[in-house]
Amino acid sequence: MSDDEFIDEYDDIYSKLCQEAQDFLIIKDIERIEKPTALEFYREYVSQNKPVIITGLLENWKAYKEWSDDYLENVMKDVEVTVSITNDGLADAVKPINENDPKSERVFCKPFEKKIKFQEYIKHSKKSSKENKNKLAYYIQYQNNSLNVEYDKLLNDIDESVIDFAKEAFGSNIDATNFWMGQDKSVSSLHQDPYENMYCVVRGTKIFTLLPPIDYPFLYKSEFPSASFVNVGCDDNDENIKLEIQIDNDPKMNIPWIPVDPTETLENNIKLGYPLIERAHPITIRVEAGEVLYLPSLYFHRVAQESNKTSNSLSTIAINYWFDMKYGINYVYFQFLKETTKYQKQIKNKNKK
Amino acid sequence: MSDDEFIDEYDDIYSKLCQEAQDFLIIKDIERIEKPTALEFYREYVSQNKPVIITGLLENWKAYKEWSDDYLENVMKDVEVTVSITNDGLADAVKPINENDPKSERVFCKPFEKKIKFQEYIKHSKKSSKENKNKLAYYIQYQNNSLNVEYDKLLNDIDESVIDFAKEAFGSNIDATNFWMGQDKSVSSLHQDPYENMYCVVRGTKIFTLLPPIDYPFLYKSEFPSASFVNVGCDDNDENIKLEIQIDNDPKMNIPWIPVDPTETLENNIKLGYPLIERAHPITIRVEAGEVLYLPSLYFHRVAQESNKTSNSLSTIAINYWFDMKYGINYVYFQFLKETTKYQKQIKNKNKK
Repeated sequence: MSDDEFIDEYDDIYSKLCQEAQDFLIIKDIERIEKPTALEFYREYVSQNKPVIITGLLENWKAYKEWSDDYLENVMKDVEVTVSITNDGLADAVKPINENDPKSERVFCKPFEKKIKFQEYIKHSKKSSKENKNKLAYYIQYQNNSLNVEYDKLLNDIDESVIDFAKEAFGSNIDATNFWMGQDKSVSSLHQDPYENMYCVVRGTKIFTLLPPIDYPFLYKSEFPSASFVNVGCDDNDENIKLEIQIDNDPKMNIPWIPVDPTETLENNIKLGYPLIERAHPITIRVEAGEVLYLPSLYFHRVAQESNKTSNSLSTIAINYWFDMKYGINYVYFQFLKETTKYQKQIKNKNKK
Repeated sequence: MSDDEFIDEYDDIYSKLCQEAQDFLIIKDIERIEKPTALEFYREYVSQNKPVIITGLLENWKAYKEWSDDYLENVMKDVEVTVSITNDGLADAVKPINENDPKSERVFCKPFEKKIKFQEYIKHSKKSSKENKNKLAYYIQYQNNSLNVEYDKLLNDIDESVIDFAKEAFGSNIDATNFWMGQDKSVSSLHQDPYENMYCVVRGTKIFTLLPPIDYPFLYKSEFPSASFVNVGCDDNDENIKLEIQIDNDPKMNIPWIPVDPTETLENNIKLGYPLIERAHPITIRVEAGEVLYLPSLYFHRVAQESNKTSNSLSTIAINYWFDMKYGINYVYFQFLKETTKYQKQIKNKNKK
């Protein structure tokens, strides 16, 4: 329990929730622990929907010991892999349709996806680490079980240590294993997944901004027109790609997404129309190479990265395992919390005290 | 997930909650399982706040094999024990202050508590099993860690099987161990406890009516004047006790309690002013001698009992272990659910469709 007295300037249906959460739920800092028993892990973290960093689990991974850009290029060579290409590094995010006009219509924008030889990714990363920051951002973030689908040549470099531990704890099989590789410009915007997530950092640092599911009422999740980065250049070669955001027309659709960036200043978020973000409970944590973040199901997360300039990779690299979440009490209560936001406007509008 | 289509005749902030709960939370029947591993137990039941009956855990208890009224009388003899005495069998419950006038003020009524020799309890139970049902109900239900405080002579009859299993699963020590002994007239009214509860039935049958914590909005919990059964007879001897309900005056206070009996007919509950009980999700289960009910923290329960006429005890006997609940996500969401009921009246009143 916190010693700080809780102050909530609002007085509404969520005030008590914030107060109780402050006392019993919100983490003020991330815990780092050595491998616990599966029971301790489930009881203290999974059942409590509480993030934790587990250290020491990757020590025997060949990936952790040996992966470098040269090693990976040598193994993967011309294997085709999917990359997400954007101008701004934000692959799935709400942004102004006209990148130069912050006041233009806000859309949910998907990246330009392309299959390239792995070698080309390495080449691009070398080039963009030398050049100015306005170059295209390439992010290997294909989440459809990508490790097994596109990176099976690397499978032997990954020890069963995390899988075995997680399978025992969750009592189920892996749903998907994903391979992530990207440079500092690439950021995943705030979102949540219906998965228990074991996120293993192999190179560099992943910077997670974490918000508990109870912050949902303060995140302005709503529908935005679906759009994509489209290549309007003369061909798909790296040097000729020119991306422009266009509304998807076939079919036209709206995508529900969170438009708020919790790492923005409150002042900017207020300007954008998101003052309630001040009631949310973000913490930003750094997960270093060799560490595993347990990211609980439904936990909101924004993910940035910082490659290690002294390491042998210009990218940050991670492997993550998704396990199906339990659709039980936490899911049901979260749905209820979502539902209450629909009634907010019916509840007497109280001004800030 | 249920195949039955969910029908909610209401249309309010709790409709979606009931629907999601129906699909993902509500148990339609109790599961009976053999002893699971501590991890399975925690993952599938405790973390999901889901009741379950575990069989086979009491097989080596001397209590289960040997306790009879004669055996207990012989061991306990004239040890003084606390009994709760009432006219109607309801020791802590909301009832009309004038027992003969259902329309008189409803109060929260505590039992007349008395220390008697254990032998006297046995004598009373023999007498009352022969006589008419209007006799006083004696219920051994003193919950202040009573097994260790008043029944330490019986401690050796209780094997560590349940304690060891539960300690491992909950990762904590026992908070209290209670001894329960009573006849069919005694009933505990609907309530919830902030404990994980391992409820071990040694003789007879305990009949639990269970409602999940999400039913809180339909249970009309509110404050009632505190009252007690007071002995207005000439002395405290069994045959002279005459109980009358009187408001507590020193000090006067109000007690928050649930006034609804979920085993009453809906018609009667509507007459009493509790129509919303129809939205709740009660199930009634029988826990037989030799079985252990895991009763999750905050789960609402009403408890009745049925002694086994062919066994060697006229009472139903049980031992229960309380472990502190985790004050985490389930607690916080439950507090939020409670809070929303305060705003119910502010939300546009919709009539039933």
